[in-house]
Amino acid sequence: MILCVSFILFQSVAQQKELTLEDSVLGYYKGLYPKSLSSLQWVKNTETYLQKTEEAYTITNAQTQQLVNTISLNELQQVFPQLTRLPYLKGITATQLRFTLNGGIVSYNYQSKKQGTSIFYADKAENIVLNDAASHIAYTLENNLYIATSSDKKIAVTTINDKNIVSGQTIHRSEFGISGGIFWSPKGNYLAFYQKDETNVSNYPLVDVTTYPATLKNVKYPMAGQGSEQAKIGIYNVATGNVSYLDIDTTDEHYLTNLTWSPDEKQLFLAEINRGQNHVWFNSYDVASGNKIKTLFEETEDTWAEPEHPATFLPNSTSDFLWFSERDGFMNLYHYTTDETLVKQLTNFNWVVQDILGFDAKGKHVIITGTGTDGREKHTFKINLKSGKSTQLTTVAGTHRTQLSSNGAYLIDSYSNISTPKISQIIRVKKGTKTELFKAENPLKGYKLGSSEFIDLKTKKGITLHARITKPANFDPSKKYPVLIYVYGGPHAQMVTNTWMAGASLWMPIFTANQDYIVFTLDNRGSKNRGFAFENVIHRNVGVHEIEDQLTGVDYLKSLPYVDANRIAVNGWSYGGFMSTSLMLRHPGVFTTAVAGGPVIDWKYYEVMYGERYMDTPQENPEGYKKAHVTNYIKNLEGKMLIIHGSVDPVVVPQHSMSLLQKSVKEGIQVDFFTYPMHEHNVRGRDRVHLMNKMLDYVVLNNK
Amino acid sequence: MILCVSFILFQSVAQQKELTLEDSVLGYYKGLYPKSLSSLQWVKNTETYLQKTEEAYTITNAQTQQLVNTISLNELQQVFPQLTRLPYLKGITATQLRFTLNGGIVSYNYQSKKQGTSIFYADKAENIVLNDAASHIAYTLENNLYIATSSDKKIAVTTINDKNIVSGQTIHRSEFGISGGIFWSPKGNYLAFYQKDETNVSNYPLVDVTTYPATLKNVKYPMAGQGSEQAKIGIYNVATGNVSYLDIDTTDEHYLTNLTWSPDEKQLFLAEINRGQNHVWFNSYDVASGNKIKTLFEETEDTWAEPEHPATFLPNSTSDFLWFSERDGFMNLYHYTTDETLVKQLTNFNWVVQDILGFDAKGKHVIITGTGTDGREKHTFKINLKSGKSTQLTTVAGTHRTQLSSNGAYLIDSYSNISTPKISQIIRVKKGTKTELFKAENPLKGYKLGSSEFIDLKTKKGITLHARITKPANFDPSKKYPVLIYVYGGPHAQMVTNTWMAGASLWMPIFTANQDYIVFTLDNRGSKNRGFAFENVIHRNVGVHEIEDQLTGVDYLKSLPYVDANRIAVNGWSYGGFMSTSLMLRHPGVFTTAVAGGPVIDWKYYEVMYGERYMDTPQENPEGYKKAHVTNYIKNLEGKMLIIHGSVDPVVVPQHSMSLLQKSVKEGIQVDFFTYPMHEHNVRGRDRVHLMNKMLDYVVLNNK
Repeated sequence: MILCVSFILFQSVAQQKELTLEDSVLGYYKGLYPKSLSSLQWVKNTETYLQKTEEAYTITNAQTQQLVNTISLNELQQVFPQLTRLPYLKGITATQLRFTLNGGIVSYNYQSKKQGTSIFYADKAENIVLNDAASHIAYTLENNLYIATSSDKKIAVTTINDKNIVSGQTIHRSEFGISGGIFWSPKGNYLAFYQKDETNVSNYPLVDVTTYPATLKNVKYPMAGQGSEQAKIGIYNVATGNVSYLDIDTTDEHYLTNLTWSPDEKQLFLAEINRGQNHVWFNSYDVASGNKIKTLFEETEDTWAEPEHPATFLPNSTSDFLWFSERDGFMNLYHYTTDETLVKQLTNFNWVVQDILGFDAKGKHVIITGTGTDGREKHTFKINLKSGKSTQLTTVAGTHRTQLSSNGAYLIDSYSNISTPKISQIIRVKKGTKTELFKAENPLKGYKLGSSEFIDLKTKKGITLHARITKPANFDPSKKYPVLIYVYGGPHAQMVTNTWMAGASLWMPIFTANQDYIVFTLDNRGSKNRGFAFENVIHRNVGVHEIEDQLTGVDYLKSLPYVDANRIAVNGWSYGGFMSTSLMLRHPGVFTTAVAGGPVIDWKYYEVMYGERYMDTPQENPEGYKKAHVTNYIKNLEGKMLIIHGSVDPVVVPQHSMSLLQKSVKEGIQVDFFTYPMHEHNVRGRDRVHLMNKMLDYVVLNNK
Repeated sequence: MILCVSFILFQSVAQQKELTLEDSVLGYYKGLYPKSLSSLQWVKNTETYLQKTEEAYTITNAQTQQLVNTISLNELQQVFPQLTRLPYLKGITATQLRFTLNGGIVSYNYQSKKQGTSIFYADKAENIVLNDAASHIAYTLENNLYIATSSDKKIAVTTINDKNIVSGQTIHRSEFGISGGIFWSPKGNYLAFYQKDETNVSNYPLVDVTTYPATLKNVKYPMAGQGSEQAKIGIYNVATGNVSYLDIDTTDEHYLTNLTWSPDEKQLFLAEINRGQNHVWFNSYDVASGNKIKTLFEETEDTWAEPEHPATFLPNSTSDFLWFSERDGFMNLYHYTTDETLVKQLTNFNWVVQDILGFDAKGKHVIITGTGTDGREKHTFKINLKSGKSTQLTTVAGTHRTQLSSNGAYLIDSYSNISTPKISQIIRVKKGTKTELFKAENPLKGYKLGSSEFIDLKTKKGITLHARITKPANFDPSKKYPVLIYVYGGPHAQMVTNTWMAGASLWMPIFTANQDYIVFTLDNRGSKNRGFAFENVIHRNVGVHEIEDQLTGVDYLKSLPYVDANRIAVNGWSYGGFMSTSLMLRHPGVFTTAVAGGPVIDWKYYEVMYGERYMDTPQENPEGYKKAHVTNYIKNLEGKMLIIHGSVDPVVVPQHSMSLLQKSVKEGIQVDFFTYPMHEHNVRGRDRVHLMNKMLDYVVLNNK
């Protein structure tokens, strides 16, 4: 194990003002998070950007930094007297602002100072998606899909009574990059939509205890190995009003993902994945007939294949597109054509490409985001479409969130890193030159707080693991400190990032300062942004490598002269609850205390889409499920363990914790439990103060 | 407050063998409870009694004490080779034993050594009631009522598909003395049965977490102030097979209770009670027509009227009967005739008559049980039907459970008291002479255990309250002991009784001994066996007088030099959970610790029948409900409070605890909670060991 302390970045020396756990929860309202420019965004098809001040929207020229327009609340109120504050914008062009008002999306022409086109939808509308080209809004009401037009027509796209059939909403539990079920075509002539048939999906009974008497609140929940949903793609033709469906047989419960319109609206592309999730077919369909045209390519993996990005067509092309794939071990871009040709692998990074923002002004470069060589960071690059040459546009180490102007000439870049609360700047894509717009003050200056550092550890196999250690204020290396390990550990997530406070939650420096504690977090194998091999080692065997890596972290902590090796506690939520309970029970004697929230206890109670990707079905992988089943280790408990669950958790259902409690009772093992009534997969809002106090009081009381 | 220590009865001096809480739960199997004669009962229509030994039933003459018969397992196995042990008996006559075997009630003639009449019912039959005269069995399957005959016919008495309509089962949630829904007529020609229509009763959603996935387990639960059940009385005519119903309109949801057949089978009597439970009509109905004949008498009460005993006809009379009523402040017997005449108040005790066992050999005396002058005791008396003269047949102080022989000449008496584990004897009703059959050894001899004493306290108003104090082994009055108050406090129950260990549960002397604790229990006003005025003080105002009396107990404890007044904890279940939480929250600073199991938190979540008797409806008594609502006091919490609930508690539904947790989270108050998965209104079986450890560990940890 090689140890490499990066560098101390977030310093806080002896200061007097103390913060509380309540401050950590309500920190946003208390000004404890770095300030940023509000609503900062490009004005569509211009080189100007908008931001929001107290009383007005301002529009500024990116090149000259000259103020171009000011639209005050006062001005808006002349046309919309209902407004009491500046509205949250749904879009901004060179002439119009769009925002939600009174059950519609209204627009305001700030050049003519008049109301523009407005479209009103139904009162309880959800999943509202505007089609700019057609001046239509698609939305859902309960399980059906509707359209509202600017001429105030309401059109029912689907009229299905059976509540098991749901149109226009996200499907596949929002895995595979899916975030919604409404897909307007590029020119606005069609609306493609997802439809799922949940007839074969079980109900999970949750209970609303706020009614008199309590009432049932069923949620559809497909458990691993059980009946799943069957997806369909519907197409609504705006001109004819006809609804048709693509001809796809999904009785095998395979997945329809990453829907992509061809730029000419004649074809739809889908990444179809078998339920086993190790085979992808990238298929094209004829919009007019609904028939499959062909399979452009296939991908198979021994572990799993997980496309999460639609195809991106090159500028002004209806044939050439870019495709994300992890087939070489890292997420890279591949240039395909619709005639089934792989033109080339465009990028060949041994780090993770994350997203495509667009193309530069001349269409010669694609602008992408990715980690760069440090998986804890996020940067923006331009990639020459011909040569594949890569130029990094964001240069300062850290996590850059960028927006590309419509013409591809400018980026708005807002970034932070371990020592920088927030900086916003304009970057010129061509030359890479920058103009700073904003630099945030350190909002925590003057408070007594712990400080966070990066740590790199190496596993026995030489794999680098990133970790973060938060030491108390007035840290004294000659003392012995107790440790709380905060863990998540599951895929799709990363706890240690080069962002403000190194990704630490605000409670960490507060807790370390107030209790003279060390808080430690390590991203084990299986976690995000380190490539496919780093992640897929967990396949069919969750818990094993993750625990091994966390214990590498424990060994490191125990090697530190200032750590009290007999006082180490562990805490986590969700996958982190699985990790906390597993660490506590499968390695008794290492931890005095575990606090697990919403823990996965038995993977067969988790959902089909996420669960089977990593574990296959319980029928296919009985050994893996058995080995990961936390209740099997309950008899090992040494020390104290608190389990917490939201009473109406629809993600990790309460059955997980209940099954652990039942086994603990049967085995005569005393564990502690608390449930947060009417909370879901976490405890949000003000109630979170109670949760933080409960968890950390428990750690302090028992980690002795 | 006057203090009166009764006398120390259960002595346990310095002994070595320690018992554990597990021993207290599994004590029956470990021989820690007093032995008794097994299956001791009268042989019907004889002066002989039966008992069960290891390998045989024996029948003994009560007068001569001579063994009359021995029926061995071996002998039974000649006829019933399936038997592996002596069966549990369903009846015994001079010639036959009856017992359940292979889905039927079979009989064995021990004179002829042959199988007698047997009747077989359906596999999943419940509520099985034998009609001896007609050789029929009535039983229920799901919501319908059936009959099986000795000629192996199965008759469906009701065939109702609607599961909201339930026939042949207990109604009114087994209040008003109801324990079943099947009433064969005296000569066996008719079957009267209860039918309830629960259409207007809400479902309470409970969740079975042992299925994959969890499944809904609805129970019908009528909450106070909400829709209740509508009852009916059906009559099945054995000769004709016809089913008819009494003509009673119950759309007002009034109660049909204490069904009584006239000895000639021509009339049915019912105590009908309004839903408000303060008015009783004792009505007679014509069996042939179903029409009401008349109201024999009415009773009204300002608080509540609660008949719990059917009428008892005098021997060989079809006109004269005895009726239980609390109308003079204590439960006494009244002699009525069917022509609406109150002949006389037969008993005039200022203590509680509890039951009628029958009549003596000449029919001149009724044999009753009641407390006698000490409410903690239970005795048997004969009352001269003409003069009302009372003779106490059980003379030793204590709790006597007696059975009367068919001819009324003999009693089997099994009793215990604070210093007597168990004695069984024969009592001759005429002369009162006794023959001892059995005397149990002290099963706790040689163990290190606390000892229990009676305490009498007086309230400021001069009312005597009975209490019990359990002191540790090797009690040293110069020490300061912490105290755990164990409380129930609700109506229909009594914790302090003159029985073995003074009614203490076995965990109490074990806990006091092992932890050097004092355990204290007091029966406050509202509790059983002290008369109507003592009980009905709680009307519309539960919690107030009960708490006042418990605090009288606390004051007494604090006055004791050997009590550490700063270390008093409280624990209770159900009504005792209501009391524990109320005491903790409404009198902060008195208790360091409360542990409440299955607590009533908000009386509007409790059931109609029990709840409205004491509290009226939430609409009628909003102030009373508000005052008793535990969550209203959560902000007062000082010290530690653990709430425990069975996850499928169908009596005090989980909503109670959940509402308290929700309020505690909202108010930022930390309480502790545990739920026992798949346990109902208590934790039974081996899992109870876990519960006892959880509760008492919590007390020991926090009562400091």
